[in-house]
Amino acid sequence: MPITRLRSLLYAPANRPDLTAKMARFGPDAAILDLEDGTPGDEKISARTMAAQAATDLRPRFSGSIWLRVNAPRDDLIDGDINVVSNGPFDGIVVPKIERVDDVERIERLLNAAASNAVGVMWGFETVLGIRDCHRILEASTRAAAAFFGAEDYIADLGGRRTPSSLETLYPRSKVAAACRLRGIVAVDQVVLAINNPEGFRRDALEGLALGYRGKNCIHPSQVPICADVYSPTEQEVDRARRLLTAYENAVATGRGTANFEGQMIDLPLVTQARTILSLAGE
Amino acid sequence: MPITRLRSLLYAPANRPDLTAKMARFGPDAAILDLEDGTPGDEKISARTMAAQAATDLRPRFSGSIWLRVNAPRDDLIDGDINVVSNGPFDGIVVPKIERVDDVERIERLLNAAASNAVGVMWGFETVLGIRDCHRILEASTRAAAAFFGAEDYIADLGGRRTPSSLETLYPRSKVAAACRLRGIVAVDQVVLAINNPEGFRRDALEGLALGYRGKNCIHPSQVPICADVYSPTEQEVDRARRLLTAYENAVATGRGTANFEGQMIDLPLVTQARTILSLAGE
Amino acid sequence: MPITRLRSLLYAPANRPDLTAKMARFGPDAAILDLEDGTPGDEKISARTMAAQAATDLRPRFSGSIWLRVNAPRDDLIDGDINVVSNGPFDGIVVPKIERVDDVERIERLLNAAASNAVGVMWGFETVLGIRDCHRILEASTRAAAAFFGAEDYIADLGGRRTPSSLETLYPRSKVAAACRLRGIVAVDQVVLAINNPEGFRRDALEGLALGYRGKNCIHPSQVPICADVYSPTEQEVDRARRLLTAYENAVATGRGTANFEGQMIDLPLVTQARTILSLAGE
Repeated sequence: MPITRLRSLLYAPANRPDLTAKMARFGPDAAILDLEDGTPGDEKISARTMAAQAATDLRPRFSGSIWLRVNAPRDDLIDGDINVVSNGPFDGIVVPKIERVDDVERIERLLNAAASNAVGVMWGFETVLGIRDCHRILEASTRAAAAFFGAEDYIADLGGRRTPSSLETLYPRSKVAAACRLRGIVAVDQVVLAINNPEGFRRDALEGLALGYRGKNCIHPSQVPICADVYSPTEQEVDRARRLLTAYENAVATGRGTANFEGQMIDLPLVTQARTILSLAGE
Repeated sequence: MPITRLRSLLYAPANRPDLTAKMARFGPDAAILDLEDGTPGDEKISARTMAAQAATDLRPRFSGSIWLRVNAPRDDLIDGDINVVSNGPFDGIVVPKIERVDDVERIERLLNAAASNAVGVMWGFETVLGIRDCHRILEASTRAAAAFFGAEDYIADLGGRRTPSSLETLYPRSKVAAACRLRGIVAVDQVVLAINNPEGFRRDALEGLALGYRGKNCIHPSQVPICADVYSPTEQEVDRARRLLTAYENAVATGRGTANFEGQMIDLPLVTQARTILSLAGE
Repeated sequence: MPITRLRSLLYAPANRPDLTAKMARFGPDAAILDLEDGTPGDEKISARTMAAQAATDLRPRFSGSIWLRVNAPRDDLIDGDINVVSNGPFDGIVVPKIERVDDVERIERLLNAAASNAVGVMWGFETVLGIRDCHRILEASTRAAAAFFGAEDYIADLGGRRTPSSLETLYPRSKVAAACRLRGIVAVDQVVLAINNPEGFRRDALEGLALGYRGKNCIHPSQVPICADVYSPTEQEVDRARRLLTAYENAVATGRGTANFEGQMIDLPLVTQARTILSLAGE
């Protein structure tokens, strides 16, 4: 499976073999072995070996991509963290809290020494500085495969508050998705902390989809199937896309440049959207 | 009528004389003869002569401005499209999907060779790249008379989804209006595709007005009168503006710098807004 | 009390001793003597002496900070306005409608001649140009202590409309708060003009808090206690600020120039932000 299929990203602390061993059964598109927030400070060194072992154990049983989340770019731990990718079948590393072009360059130099070019980077934009400069950070990256927007850390850094409306994240969330589009990489959306609210998660995922996100960080296995549902086209969408394309092709065949379809004027963007739906559905 | 009066912009495919002949009767502020999305690929060359003819036919019967929508800046067709303006009474050209400063410069050089300086340009910001760089694109343009935000193409380019809330367009829509204000040109707002929903159209137009838009692209004649209504001040607004200015002038005359008007503190921005309303009403 | 405690800012026209004399009793964090919009044109010169006198009268009875709002950067009045700070116990000046880096530099030169470095500047971002360039304007300022977002002037400058949803201000309001965070200064939020709607004021204040604002311009004394309620930091924030400062002080004590705090590099703006939290909490 390509590492750019990233509808759902499930995290497990690298120092918890009981949790990492279970990741495959939940069927996320990406399994992320976490050396950052999920692993306590006094286990961060020993967790490295465990992360490589967990990736090796997971590989034969898991069709998704396997990632290593390292510590932040200016943390002393990052150099050693990056070397872990040479000890296991990792498809990529997740680098949180990227803020500066020099850090991108330094991290990619370290990665060049440790891994083949097939190992991608997912950059985490989750600080005010990182998001202000996200366009040039992504332009400077040669290994970028994806990037995510981290709402919780962003709002903490800003000194704001998370609210149910998420309006406080609309500006940075919109900007990161646009920067991903310009770099041609997958945009991965903010987490939803309330794990007992599947409807809230779905609503948030749909908002992200509207903004250009194509996947979502998950903090609980129950969120994975909702992502598969939201970020894959529905049968109804597929049907509608087929009918819309038929109406458009009929209009073109009869020399008309415009056509009316179920109360909507069909123009080229709608046609493009319909074709995207069909390709997501595997057609 | 000045070409900057652009409350409603009505489009018709240039290859459809049956439709272009009817444009005047719908009374838009601008009639746009379309060589781009509205005209099928195999008629795009022959439609040029038809566009010039349609403009010539329309001119004596139409008090609004007449525009030619050309193909996108990197389409091979654009050079020939631009020459059409020398064959008919066009007030301006609409250039869709502008993204790069070099394209602005190239298109304006072509236009300088084909038309007088009185022919203006309306730039279409409808891609992620174009909107990221909209400020410097408008600064580079010497003929800019207006610009529009194209939500459908923008969201298709982003890989997002249009939703009833339009929150997915708030960031780019806000940014384009601000760039127009700094360039001193008219901002024209996104289309509404649902042609059987006048209330939805009105709500969207009012949201655009709040964001600084002064007109709207229309895809159906029924949308034109709604634009005239939304983008012209109401009698109630005119009355209220007059009363507010009277209250303010009384406060100034009696040495008070502040005044309370119907539960609101009057300050200078409110006074400016009131004066704008009166000038839009022709006072 | 530090001048960065700015939960509520109450304005009074400098030429109205009947109003300035009452400011202390309403208990705002900042009392602002206004030479700009609140003072009519023909009293703007005589109001200067009155502003200095009002500050002198207020000082012994008022524990908050005292500010002078001067006229706009390109107004002929500003040079004389700035000199007023040397005639009274002012903690800072409020400069409305800042738009250009040269104006920042000129105003700070004037202020260097008139006042000690303890006198801070609060910049008002309330025009489309100022908000486009707010990041570099704040970077250019050496005396910045705070900045505010002025929604009414911004929307008037844009030619838009204020609406109850405030969605029309979400983009500039988000951007100004982010720029303040990067400069390490307090972000002060938009006014609410409807003075008979405390619930509307509270809702707007909470929206601002979510976006990173730490205080609000008030146009009526009844708004002051709502600000104190909304903008006082939580116990969790106070704890986090204390831990961050401890980590920073440990780093400094052990000769390290940088320190890592919960995965983020501590930089000076973060330290300033933590100190602001403690000062907002009254420590």
